[in-house]
Amino acid sequence: MIQTDICIVGAGPVGLFAIFEAGLLKMRCHLVDALPQIGGQLSEIYPKKPIYDIPGYPTVLAQELVDNLVKQAEPFQPTYTLGERIETYERLEDNSFLIKTNEGTEINAKIICIAGGLGCFEPRKPEVEGIERFESGKGIAYMVLNPEVYRGKRVIIAGAGDSALDWTIFLSNVAAEVTLVHRSQSFRGAPDSVEKVMNLAAEGKIKLLLDSNIQALNGSGHLESVSFTNKADEVTMVPTDYLIPLFGLSPKLGPIEHWGLNLDKNAIEVNVHDYSTNVPGIYAIGDINTYPGKLKLILCGFHEAALMCHGAYKYLNPDKKVTLKYTTVNGVNGF
Amino acid sequence: MIQTDICIVGAGPVGLFAIFEAGLLKMRCHLVDALPQIGGQLSEIYPKKPIYDIPGYPTVLAQELVDNLVKQAEPFQPTYTLGERIETYERLEDNSFLIKTNEGTEINAKIICIAGGLGCFEPRKPEVEGIERFESGKGIAYMVLNPEVYRGKRVIIAGAGDSALDWTIFLSNVAAEVTLVHRSQSFRGAPDSVEKVMNLAAEGKIKLLLDSNIQALNGSGHLESVSFTNKADEVTMVPTDYLIPLFGLSPKLGPIEHWGLNLDKNAIEVNVHDYSTNVPGIYAIGDINTYPGKLKLILCGFHEAALMCHGAYKYLNPDKKVTLKYTTVNGVNGF
Repeated sequence: MIQTDICIVGAGPVGLFAIFEAGLLKMRCHLVDALPQIGGQLSEIYPKKPIYDIPGYPTVLAQELVDNLVKQAEPFQPTYTLGERIETYERLEDNSFLIKTNEGTEINAKIICIAGGLGCFEPRKPEVEGIERFESGKGIAYMVLNPEVYRGKRVIIAGAGDSALDWTIFLSNVAAEVTLVHRSQSFRGAPDSVEKVMNLAAEGKIKLLLDSNIQALNGSGHLESVSFTNKADEVTMVPTDYLIPLFGLSPKLGPIEHWGLNLDKNAIEVNVHDYSTNVPGIYAIGDINTYPGKLKLILCGFHEAALMCHGAYKYLNPDKKVTLKYTTVNGVNGF
Repeated sequence: MIQTDICIVGAGPVGLFAIFEAGLLKMRCHLVDALPQIGGQLSEIYPKKPIYDIPGYPTVLAQELVDNLVKQAEPFQPTYTLGERIETYERLEDNSFLIKTNEGTEINAKIICIAGGLGCFEPRKPEVEGIERFESGKGIAYMVLNPEVYRGKRVIIAGAGDSALDWTIFLSNVAAEVTLVHRSQSFRGAPDSVEKVMNLAAEGKIKLLLDSNIQALNGSGHLESVSFTNKADEVTMVPTDYLIPLFGLSPKLGPIEHWGLNLDKNAIEVNVHDYSTNVPGIYAIGDINTYPGKLKLILCGFHEAALMCHGAYKYLNPDKKVTLKYTTVNGVNGF
């Protein structure tokens, strides 16, 4: 069984920074994330997108920020359980928690800190029969993990938001052929992305298929073509190697929903003094919590992580007085 | 008269980041700082010290952080009044504020945001009779605002810390004559600065007067000489054009103390939903505010800046609904 001071649920930027703040107070952290890698949404959804609102970074790529946070946490030797989802917790006699994952991993922690972002992300899937036949590498992908997979291939992208537009623009230089399909005429993404896509279509560099819905997926083994219907119910069959439906990710709170925490819609209500939940010893920081004035910004999660760690330290050591030690004066003393 | 949306009192890291967050909401900022340069304590007191707890920066020099924050704020074209101290405010009929500095500069702002760090840093003055006679350009200066003032002049610097040592070294190439005076034999500054000063003294490029205290300032109109006493109570009179006592800065809340804001010791009490004070339209962020759980960390000030800007926007536009736009999606659209 894994033993730790704080079990952090979620290895996104806010969970990662909590390791550092906990470490300054001599508390060790173990992180659990359902995704197979560290970094949360930043690594999973937009690793190469620039972020402009991290204080002190006029611009930083999402993955670069994650890498820096990992480096900053290193002196405090965090441990990780990745690709597993927290399922249940029970409180032991000594007031600590026994936490179990869907794979049966057991963690004993004095504190649980939920830094789960928007929850577990599940892609919204098109409603078309037999789509699961082409999942896991057989022609359907709900996210672009590695654009190189599509080099020289024929790709159909479905969707109307920023992901669909951005990947259409990006893959127009990579894939042999890109078709962008959308069920109406109007796109939801950033106006300049819409303009770029329209220009690419006008120049013949991509194909646009508007007012069209996916009707059927064809192919034996690997996907070979997709059939679409238009408003007049006419069917068009487009030969392709890949279909990438980018209909967004739908966040789910997952098993935590049943933990007895006070919820407001999909978020956990917290006390802003220390970001504690209604269950003593369980805290929630980052996009997953809510309180009056809440902004779902990474920079706010950093602040919440700092106050949470001080709050947890006081909860565990009610008789000790903590004086804030500045790293400029004391440096960083790892484990 | 300067016109702005938000008058930010204090150009330290937190005030600088507020420009960016305000800019995203299309609000313009004017910053006022009593110090002659941007950056607050970071630039004034420890520009070359590494900071380890800025999220995403395993280490960053204080001045480097300031430079990056200035760069991040640039698209929103902030304006500055430096080397002046905010003195008074009055509320105008349209509910905006008229703010005046000690030099008579007038600023009209819809919002006042106090990001004053630990307060105005006021120079610690030597206890010597009639010193105020020579202040404001008559021979006594507590900061070196423009080194060119001292070109070809005789200068006495008093002090034992980094400022005294650094300015002694710098002015040895500018002034006609530099005398460094200290009441004991040991200096508190960086060892290599002490070594440089000792070498300059050995080479006859500066004069050292140790174990000496300022006894009297002489001159009619402008300063003409300073008298010192040593341990044996012998008096030495040194003819000079300027005396620069660099005894450090002591934080004071300053005139803001009398603004009718709820205070707790030297800090301004705020509502954590938006970091508003008890006076509508006046906000306080960073080290100068206090609330349950408060940690005096730069990273917390960043969060407070973001929530303050959203709060101020709602205060100014009670009927508009703000949806948080992400920079990853929308980029940064400056003025």
